[in-house]
Amino acid sequence: MNNKSIIDRIVNSILDVLPKGKNFYPLHEPSFEGNEWKYLKECLDTGWVSSVGKYVDEFEKKLADFTGAKMAIAAVNGTSALQICLKIVGVTTGDEVLTNALTFVATSNAISYCGGIPHYVDSNEKTLGLCPISLRAYLKEIAELRNNECFNRKTGNRIKALVPMHVFGHPADIDPLLEVANEFSISAVEDAAESLGSYYKGKHTGTFGKISALSFNGNKTITTGGGGAILTNDSELGRLAKHLTTTAKVPHKWEFFHDMIGYNFRLPNICAALGCAQLEQLPGFIQKKRMLAEKYKNAFNDIPEVRFVTEPSFGKSNYWLNTLIFRKDFSHLRDDLLEKTNSMGIQTRPAWRLNSDLPMFQNCPKMALPVAEYLEKSVVNIPSSSNLIPSE
Amino acid sequence: MNNKSIIDRIVNSILDVLPKGKNFYPLHEPSFEGNEWKYLKECLDTGWVSSVGKYVDEFEKKLADFTGAKMAIAAVNGTSALQICLKIVGVTTGDEVLTNALTFVATSNAISYCGGIPHYVDSNEKTLGLCPISLRAYLKEIAELRNNECFNRKTGNRIKALVPMHVFGHPADIDPLLEVANEFSISAVEDAAESLGSYYKGKHTGTFGKISALSFNGNKTITTGGGGAILTNDSELGRLAKHLTTTAKVPHKWEFFHDMIGYNFRLPNICAALGCAQLEQLPGFIQKKRMLAEKYKNAFNDIPEVRFVTEPSFGKSNYWLNTLIFRKDFSHLRDDLLEKTNSMGIQTRPAWRLNSDLPMFQNCPKMALPVAEYLEKSVVNIPSSSNLIPSE
Repeated sequence: MNNKSIIDRIVNSILDVLPKGKNFYPLHEPSFEGNEWKYLKECLDTGWVSSVGKYVDEFEKKLADFTGAKMAIAAVNGTSALQICLKIVGVTTGDEVLTNALTFVATSNAISYCGGIPHYVDSNEKTLGLCPISLRAYLKEIAELRNNECFNRKTGNRIKALVPMHVFGHPADIDPLLEVANEFSISAVEDAAESLGSYYKGKHTGTFGKISALSFNGNKTITTGGGGAILTNDSELGRLAKHLTTTAKVPHKWEFFHDMIGYNFRLPNICAALGCAQLEQLPGFIQKKRMLAEKYKNAFNDIPEVRFVTEPSFGKSNYWLNTLIFRKDFSHLRDDLLEKTNSMGIQTRPAWRLNSDLPMFQNCPKMALPVAEYLEKSVVNIPSSSNLIPSE
Repeated sequence: MNNKSIIDRIVNSILDVLPKGKNFYPLHEPSFEGNEWKYLKECLDTGWVSSVGKYVDEFEKKLADFTGAKMAIAAVNGTSALQICLKIVGVTTGDEVLTNALTFVATSNAISYCGGIPHYVDSNEKTLGLCPISLRAYLKEIAELRNNECFNRKTGNRIKALVPMHVFGHPADIDPLLEVANEFSISAVEDAAESLGSYYKGKHTGTFGKISALSFNGNKTITTGGGGAILTNDSELGRLAKHLTTTAKVPHKWEFFHDMIGYNFRLPNICAALGCAQLEQLPGFIQKKRMLAEKYKNAFNDIPEVRFVTEPSFGKSNYWLNTLIFRKDFSHLRDDLLEKTNSMGIQTRPAWRLNSDLPMFQNCPKMALPVAEYLEKSVVNIPSSSNLIPSE
């Protein structure tokens, strides 16, 4: 089959899945079909729109309930949430933090805000997340333990944390990753920005590491406008996270006493109100997104040049962004597909540029990244909004 | 007069000004009497609640128009805005930044996020802001210029920036402060978090230094839920601020390429929508706040033990937080007044603890701070919401 007909077949398969009659199919758009108006209006009517108000507490409670985490702490966005997680596990100036080369730049940025140095790890082709096997082999080679702390023999820096990011919502293979982290005395912090509603062996992503970060940006499975959260099962870490995200103010009826360098990372009440309404609809969103993925899977079944990414056997995915991967030898077709679909009003996008290739991180340490490099060249995300499945 | 009768007279004067019939008079609460609901509803109806949407652009344009700044860049809050300002003028690890000892902790925090070291300067009793005279005398003593950069002779650190904060909305005496900054080759960055609607010699605060920060937290003159902005008259700095606050992504129809360590400091569209509605009402808010201040001024006129802070002759204040200062010898009455008023449902608060006394900043360099120390002990902020003046 020639290149053009491969692209045409892929486009037709996407069109088969998409509902008819729209001019534009965004990659991911939010749905506001619940109590959004009611809750927002209540914020205005009561005057509680900002840092104080019942919706922040309610949102945190609902999030903890949904994910099964002991504590959830709302934050102003996912990047800020991750920054606080890294601070809390003790990442400080000069520490290396192992993470995906294939991730949104926020992961590397959050590490750098703490003075840390991203240290890039290769991906697993199946999960798109960190590969525990190559990570372990690599650490055997470059890392050593001194006084129960891990050091990079080549750079001399401490390796303080491991940040597995659940790519496009698909759960990474957490258990063996945690094993490696334990073996090398490295703290695990999940970047679950994309994986609200995704599970690993029946447990919600973001509840495995010491502490983890979620995101509710406008393009995510649920949105708070902009927002994020920290999950942890350790109440002490949770309390510290709350303290750090709220300017480290020591409670007092009128005194302004702050006992640490804190952050203004509170989620505004108005954003939390939106989040409460969205969380109520989350199970429905996920059901629809999974139905959409099932449709895509069937539609691409007989196109051998691409693989449609499906959830791993050990987990359940929210299918945040549905993902096609050109098989080896066909990666050169990626840009043709991006051009064709976007010109037709079907919004698609490639994977992120590897963080290890961005100018500000290009000198950071990294292992060989053959899988990440292949994925970078070969991935195309396709429209994934829950509203592409009509309500009954 | 005994202490109790002094407190009683003050409380009665406050009650004379406050409208009757409420159980609780907050220190500062927002008013939503304009297009807030209309604009919020439009965000929900169109699905644009997050990082993209027309309200962010509109809010930035309206802010630039209102303040007369060439550019306004919306940000997620005032602390983040100030952090970006400091980055942009080049504050980096080990640099000292001169600022108010008497300020909200966010000023010092923002400095520290850049790796900077706050260096505390005394206040002026009249303006409550930085004192240009004692600053100049102090710098003569401790600073020296090398290759047109300012260094602290005692610590050896570079002194990179001067951050005058306009306390409680009252404009600091900017001209002589800028003169000192110029004389010592220090970049001026105004912390105008509290002074939206305040003017110095007819020009809006925040338009004097190289670049400056505003805040729209829930307790401010206008609110966006949580939010802030950067003002500058330098288009190049403005463009850089926009780039840095939006993850430093290089525009492309689908590629994710970022060329600097950027920040996720975008203001959500939903917050900007609230801000647009609030900005429309700002002139009215300020008019009422100034009327309220006038009433307080008259009410306290014959209580010699306190001074009610009025705007300086060179400027116009938004009277964000109305401020009483116990005259020397009466500061010991502050806590009695705080106790009494708060127990009656009249929310009052003291000034912030001096940042130079907070545990994380107590070893930072500082000049003698006699005025700031006096103000810290003697200031009480009293209810200041615009809605304390009834609409006609």
